[in-house]
Amino acid sequence: MAYRLEHDFLGEKEVPESAYYGIQTLRAVENFPITGVPIHPELLVALAHVKKAAARANMDVHLLQTTIGEAIVKASEEVIEQQLLDQFIVDSIQGGAGTSINMNMNEVLANRALELLGRDKGDYFHCSPNNHVNMSQSTNDAIPTALRIAAHTLTQHLLEALQALQDGFLAKRDEFDDVIKMGRTHLQDAVPIRLGQEFGAYAAVLGRDIARIRSAAIHALTVNMGATAVGTGLNAKPEYISAVIAHLQEQTGLPIRAADDLVDATQNSDAYTELSAALKVCAVNLSKICNDIRLMASGPRVGLAELSLPPRQPGSSIMPGKVNPVMAEVVNQVAFQVMGNDHTLCMACEAGQFELNVMGPVIAFNLLQSLKILRNGVDVFLRHAVEGMQANRERCESYVANSFGIVTALNPHLGYEVAAQLVKEALATGLTIRELILERGLLTPEEMTEILNPYAMTSPGIAGEHLLEDAK
Amino acid sequence: MAYRLEHDFLGEKEVPESAYYGIQTLRAVENFPITGVPIHPELLVALAHVKKAAARANMDVHLLQTTIGEAIVKASEEVIEQQLLDQFIVDSIQGGAGTSINMNMNEVLANRALELLGRDKGDYFHCSPNNHVNMSQSTNDAIPTALRIAAHTLTQHLLEALQALQDGFLAKRDEFDDVIKMGRTHLQDAVPIRLGQEFGAYAAVLGRDIARIRSAAIHALTVNMGATAVGTGLNAKPEYISAVIAHLQEQTGLPIRAADDLVDATQNSDAYTELSAALKVCAVNLSKICNDIRLMASGPRVGLAELSLPPRQPGSSIMPGKVNPVMAEVVNQVAFQVMGNDHTLCMACEAGQFELNVMGPVIAFNLLQSLKILRNGVDVFLRHAVEGMQANRERCESYVANSFGIVTALNPHLGYEVAAQLVKEALATGLTIRELILERGLLTPEEMTEILNPYAMTSPGIAGEHLLEDAK
Amino acid sequence: MAYRLEHDFLGEKEVPESAYYGIQTLRAVENFPITGVPIHPELLVALAHVKKAAARANMDVHLLQTTIGEAIVKASEEVIEQQLLDQFIVDSIQGGAGTSINMNMNEVLANRALELLGRDKGDYFHCSPNNHVNMSQSTNDAIPTALRIAAHTLTQHLLEALQALQDGFLAKRDEFDDVIKMGRTHLQDAVPIRLGQEFGAYAAVLGRDIARIRSAAIHALTVNMGATAVGTGLNAKPEYISAVIAHLQEQTGLPIRAADDLVDATQNSDAYTELSAALKVCAVNLSKICNDIRLMASGPRVGLAELSLPPRQPGSSIMPGKVNPVMAEVVNQVAFQVMGNDHTLCMACEAGQFELNVMGPVIAFNLLQSLKILRNGVDVFLRHAVEGMQANRERCESYVANSFGIVTALNPHLGYEVAAQLVKEALATGLTIRELILERGLLTPEEMTEILNPYAMTSPGIAGEHLLEDAK
Amino acid sequence: MAYRLEHDFLGEKEVPESAYYGIQTLRAVENFPITGVPIHPELLVALAHVKKAAARANMDVHLLQTTIGEAIVKASEEVIEQQLLDQFIVDSIQGGAGTSINMNMNEVLANRALELLGRDKGDYFHCSPNNHVNMSQSTNDAIPTALRIAAHTLTQHLLEALQALQDGFLAKRDEFDDVIKMGRTHLQDAVPIRLGQEFGAYAAVLGRDIARIRSAAIHALTVNMGATAVGTGLNAKPEYISAVIAHLQEQTGLPIRAADDLVDATQNSDAYTELSAALKVCAVNLSKICNDIRLMASGPRVGLAELSLPPRQPGSSIMPGKVNPVMAEVVNQVAFQVMGNDHTLCMACEAGQFELNVMGPVIAFNLLQSLKILRNGVDVFLRHAVEGMQANRERCESYVANSFGIVTALNPHLGYEVAAQLVKEALATGLTIRELILERGLLTPEEMTEILNPYAMTSPGIAGEHLLEDAK
Repeated sequence: MAYRLEHDFLGEKEVPESAYYGIQTLRAVENFPITGVPIHPELLVALAHVKKAAARANMDVHLLQTTIGEAIVKASEEVIEQQLLDQFIVDSIQGGAGTSINMNMNEVLANRALELLGRDKGDYFHCSPNNHVNMSQSTNDAIPTALRIAAHTLTQHLLEALQALQDGFLAKRDEFDDVIKMGRTHLQDAVPIRLGQEFGAYAAVLGRDIARIRSAAIHALTVNMGATAVGTGLNAKPEYISAVIAHLQEQTGLPIRAADDLVDATQNSDAYTELSAALKVCAVNLSKICNDIRLMASGPRVGLAELSLPPRQPGSSIMPGKVNPVMAEVVNQVAFQVMGNDHTLCMACEAGQFELNVMGPVIAFNLLQSLKILRNGVDVFLRHAVEGMQANRERCESYVANSFGIVTALNPHLGYEVAAQLVKEALATGLTIRELILERGLLTPEEMTEILNPYAMTSPGIAGEHLLEDAK
Repeated sequence: MAYRLEHDFLGEKEVPESAYYGIQTLRAVENFPITGVPIHPELLVALAHVKKAAARANMDVHLLQTTIGEAIVKASEEVIEQQLLDQFIVDSIQGGAGTSINMNMNEVLANRALELLGRDKGDYFHCSPNNHVNMSQSTNDAIPTALRIAAHTLTQHLLEALQALQDGFLAKRDEFDDVIKMGRTHLQDAVPIRLGQEFGAYAAVLGRDIARIRSAAIHALTVNMGATAVGTGLNAKPEYISAVIAHLQEQTGLPIRAADDLVDATQNSDAYTELSAALKVCAVNLSKICNDIRLMASGPRVGLAELSLPPRQPGSSIMPGKVNPVMAEVVNQVAFQVMGNDHTLCMACEAGQFELNVMGPVIAFNLLQSLKILRNGVDVFLRHAVEGMQANRERCESYVANSFGIVTALNPHLGYEVAAQLVKEALATGLTIRELILERGLLTPEEMTEILNPYAMTSPGIAGEHLLEDAK
Repeated sequence: MAYRLEHDFLGEKEVPESAYYGIQTLRAVENFPITGVPIHPELLVALAHVKKAAARANMDVHLLQTTIGEAIVKASEEVIEQQLLDQFIVDSIQGGAGTSINMNMNEVLANRALELLGRDKGDYFHCSPNNHVNMSQSTNDAIPTALRIAAHTLTQHLLEALQALQDGFLAKRDEFDDVIKMGRTHLQDAVPIRLGQEFGAYAAVLGRDIARIRSAAIHALTVNMGATAVGTGLNAKPEYISAVIAHLQEQTGLPIRAADDLVDATQNSDAYTELSAALKVCAVNLSKICNDIRLMASGPRVGLAELSLPPRQPGSSIMPGKVNPVMAEVVNQVAFQVMGNDHTLCMACEAGQFELNVMGPVIAFNLLQSLKILRNGVDVFLRHAVEGMQANRERCESYVANSFGIVTALNPHLGYEVAAQLVKEALATGLTIRELILERGLLTPEEMTEILNPYAMTSPGIAGEHLLEDAK
Repeated sequence: MAYRLEHDFLGEKEVPESAYYGIQTLRAVENFPITGVPIHPELLVALAHVKKAAARANMDVHLLQTTIGEAIVKASEEVIEQQLLDQFIVDSIQGGAGTSINMNMNEVLANRALELLGRDKGDYFHCSPNNHVNMSQSTNDAIPTALRIAAHTLTQHLLEALQALQDGFLAKRDEFDDVIKMGRTHLQDAVPIRLGQEFGAYAAVLGRDIARIRSAAIHALTVNMGATAVGTGLNAKPEYISAVIAHLQEQTGLPIRAADDLVDATQNSDAYTELSAALKVCAVNLSKICNDIRLMASGPRVGLAELSLPPRQPGSSIMPGKVNPVMAEVVNQVAFQVMGNDHTLCMACEAGQFELNVMGPVIAFNLLQSLKILRNGVDVFLRHAVEGMQANRERCESYVANSFGIVTALNPHLGYEVAAQLVKEALATGLTIRELILERGLLTPEEMTEILNPYAMTSPGIAGEHLLEDAK
């Protein structure tokens, strides 16, 4: 293999002649063979946007020669179009706050720009990773800005998936609106509820999740371009700062804004903890919903069997005919991962010191993974589980008929203690509540029918209210 | 000791004659001797508000006789005024979704009301814990509503403390505005920054924390009164629901609102995860700030010694004269506790099933503890550490004078590689950067003075920009 | 109120004349009004043991005058006997690595010793908190040593409770040995199992938990007495170190041993993370068990209803006759708390720096709380839920009769595909597996009876193996 | 592309003719496009071992025809030799407790076996994924067994790396044994210590980590082969169970043993929580060590600068000559990831229900990732940071000379209060402790020299002990 010799202030290294990356990338590869997971492509695309915007802004303020600048812009656009992605070979977890990601990008763009300029790779005098591609920037502004843009982009994908899932739940709310079943608290028979009301509750909490995540994603669009090394803006002209933000807005179509306080925006990582927390809250909610659905779909014979999920794959390598609620299970697992990722991310954010949080790579790794797997999980859960699920109406109705929970409606008429006594005797004698009421003459048959109407119990109100005396 | 005999549907029990609590409270005490920590008083006060509002609403809709209702109102007011608090003897962690807290309150209020009515304690025919005090309610709406009100109240105390701390940081930002020091990234010398800028960054992130926590606290004021057992509103008249909300608003002065979907509001616990997440994000930020301050205050001789904290107590039982940054340390510990509490709370919220999350007590325990200790920690940190801290100006300045970080300002003039070479040689030879520049004639003394002005480096811009050729 | 004036190197303060604590305790109270939770009494007792042993060792090596030393010993014994506990007024969460706990103890013992010597409180020339009570010690060895002893003591209580619970499960394993039921995987009907086997599995995992916790508790008994400030043993004579360990062993009856490397033992906190991790692993297991039991006890009519738990308290303030599995629920909550406490503790341990982890108080707070609540939860769970639980045998048997899961036993005879087809058709037609087999002549009635014997399916083996051809 | 048609009890699907996987693999790919991360190769190799051992055991007990069995053995060996790895295309996070991993393996081995038998892929009559490859097994025993073997294997790699790191620390302990420095507690100057003692402490805690992890890894080798679906061993002959264990032992050379209670071993996941906890404890320790090293290496001019780390890469894209402690930083990040992974894993383990924990895939994903990245991080940290680090002896010594911490040695001679007073005056006057002592005649110059010898302070003992009166 042919090599070119590159050097930095620590020494020199052979770089494959065909490679667009350079010596610093190679050092990082040597230093950090940790996860084997490459940088998320969305982060690379966002970083290329940052580099393109910076080059344009540097040309605007006459710091960067147009020929070099345009070549950098062109190279950046190629990465934005997802070309050259195989040139990004540094690991997702790496020391150095993202310097190695940044330098990998700077080197690839410099070498590709040199090529576009008709020059040899490595001829950094004519286009340098540090002096030209990284001009007016630092890892400490370029990487956080790119991470925020990438996180925002992935959040939009997630929000679409969540919105679709909410719509799916709303459709089930309507479809199951007339399916009466027993509500359960403490896994014990409670009072009647409609299955549609349960799916309405799932939709409702997802609506708040969407709002929380959207709000956090918007906060994440406040970036620190121009902060350079520590937020003071050393080597970044004020005109450059406004220009680079304007270019980023124009390139991405996003309402990116410059932080009011660049020192703050460089050292504080609350944009990540806030977004990750919103994902975690959503994960908690999704896991609860999936637990409910798995319980309702339990059976087919020895479970609650209130819901049937579309069969997606044989559920067992040994038990013939078994089908498992795998789509709900995978969302539970995704939820646990998102919750654990939040934990990692919070510890990493807590470890910030002075002007910078150097744990950026592990923050990015977890934040982007959470966004990705949550979106993927929600998407397949909707398509392969929610859309095709069916209510087992007879089962649900028979539960209501057999349960004692309906006695709660007797409270206003007979009092809690008498009603409790009825339950106790029903359990002991095997008689139904209705039979006991009639046997004892506690209510007339007409009163009983009116009061013990399970459908009426699913809306606010006191059944048979007109039978009550007015209290004064 | 004199006893009265009380019974419920499980049997009977002797209750001390003087006690306002009753049989169900005693059962809970027997069942749950877990933490030894009593219920947070703010939760009791909020629950008494709920009971008072419910009694008033039940009278409004003519379900509750005025004599009984007024007695319940009066008894509730006594608890609101923090009387009878010794009658609440159930443990903070308990099975049953808060039923034991609710019944402890129902029993205390019923017995106190009976007393006010001139009747004997335990004469529940005339005022029953379940039929009268708990009328139109369930544990499943009364307890979450009380928890949200209590959380909101404690959040207001926290927000005041955070606001005061932010003001304290802003005062230090101004006081330290002219203290130049070396910025640090990766704990390595970076470029100059002003100490005031660092405190400005602390104030800025706290400002976002305040906004996040405030927003979450407002969300928490959407309550599910009228939901009763499972959110369907069984046994709660619609007129009661609007009345109870109105009374709660009037009693507390808070913008409490009824949930649009009571089934949703009864089973979903995202109000808690959202608020706890906001506290956790704040805790992460505070811990980072305290870490910084402890590093800056390290010394007195063998540390960074940029800051002096007010001595608060002898720091060692063995090392004479030692003083430690104890106020920052305690905030670190509070932050860890808040982060761990969030973990507990999230697992508890994930464990919700169907119409209810039965883990309410442990959720309340952690949420209210986090609110309390965060407020207390922030308060003493401000008063005992922030307000009296002083900058060691000479030390900070000497750092700037001795560091190489200023070479970054040379990049636009000499390029990154040449500047790096200067650092390397300075380290090797012991010469200063200035000496090397002059020795090599890289810049004139005047140019050097202009470019290497550390104060100028603390704002955006390129020092000596006019010396650069315009790039085209 | 009468006061005495005390001073330390930071100034002076009025101390109530009747108080045994002194100026440094008061400073700590002022500095750390955080949780309101006092120091765990077991930690105070253990610390008094440390002080007693140190005084004895200091007398042994002729550093401490016998009259003073004996007075300290006597005062320590009073605290060991749980006297004077109201004098320990510092908060559980405090800055300073436990210096305030240590000084609170040093001051109380010094003043009580002075009293025993016939002198005034505060007359520290004759018995000083620092020079006499704390002689040859530092907070940094005394507090960790006390914490380890306290943790070990509480662990023994926990282990007794766990052992009793394991015995309880074993009794149920035997009692339920002949109760056949359907096993469930993925909450879907699987193959038959005996209820006793499930309780045997609960007992088995608890056995491993006991071993893990016991092992961690033994590790915790390696202490760093003699380490003094940073582990180097400055001011601690080697003879003192061996003497203090011997006294501690003798006083407590525990196999306490001195760390081989006192620097290591002073700065590393893995004894706590290890023990807390063992508690967390146990909590995870207990929570799973309680989830199972709550599922099996779900009903009474609309759940699985395989188990009946002893009713412990009315389960609802609104739903008459409802009884909830509150004893299992409280263990779930305890488990979540223990898991969250572990999180707090790990972050605190990670925050150690150089020669010491200054987060000791929050570590102690969480470790001791976890030990306490886990013990309490396990204890009441056994007594109020496990001991009285009953199997619903008919229900369990009817499940086996109605389920398809038994077809798995057909695999060796008919193959997985044919068996799967039978399930599919049984679901479609409503016929039983047995009917279908006979209808199609797949097996003779005798073969079928032999192969489809559910009891046989609960032990290893192939039912009807003799019917198979030998494979070669 | 050519396809073959495969079917299962849910329908049929086109499978690429060249593929060794089959219909169930394709279903899983369709269902679970979650992380994009493939199954860890070590898990595949271990699972192939399981399949090979099962085939051999099934032949031993005459359930599997030799021709088919030998072909399965041969196919398994190819996977063990890491061939065919591109045929394993299911995602790391998937619903179904690992059924899809198991079926992917069953299908690949069946088709490869068919090929070896001279038959067409998909001709499952002659070698079926379920009937032959999966014979006597279930996902629920095959996958946990494979996971435990894979975890054990990766643990061995980790242990080697930890052992090497411990050796590296021990070498530094010796190398730095005579480097005196100031110990620090609370980041405040404490008393002298030798740098070698600090590295000895790092080595010591790693030694305990090694023991903890090794112990957990051995526990993990208790497997549940023969458990089949729910642990009862249905369809697994007892002779098969002993044979399969023997084959596994022989194939892997590991002391694998069969669980005493297969029901227990199938439903409980404490082997994973225990191992992950041991990794987490180690991660906490490593993070603390790396924090120390980063603090000691802080500088070069504006930090503690006690240690110099080998420069591994330029540390900044903007600050010339800056070098960061990237190797320590990456270990911090790895530690946070391991801690978060433990969190995910624990929640997944807590979610086990009845006879199985269906969250196996996410458990495996996190456990194997933690093992891998911890090993990788430890390995590069040793080679690129520890081995080449150097002490800055002069700096360390000057710290000791300038600090007040040495006054602690005066306690036995002058008392804590007098010593504290000296510190206070030294700070106020700028005089040294020595000057003040002499000025006041507190000690003779000879006494002072003897007592204030910093080297002596780094071992247990009282300097100048002979000067003390004997206390009686």
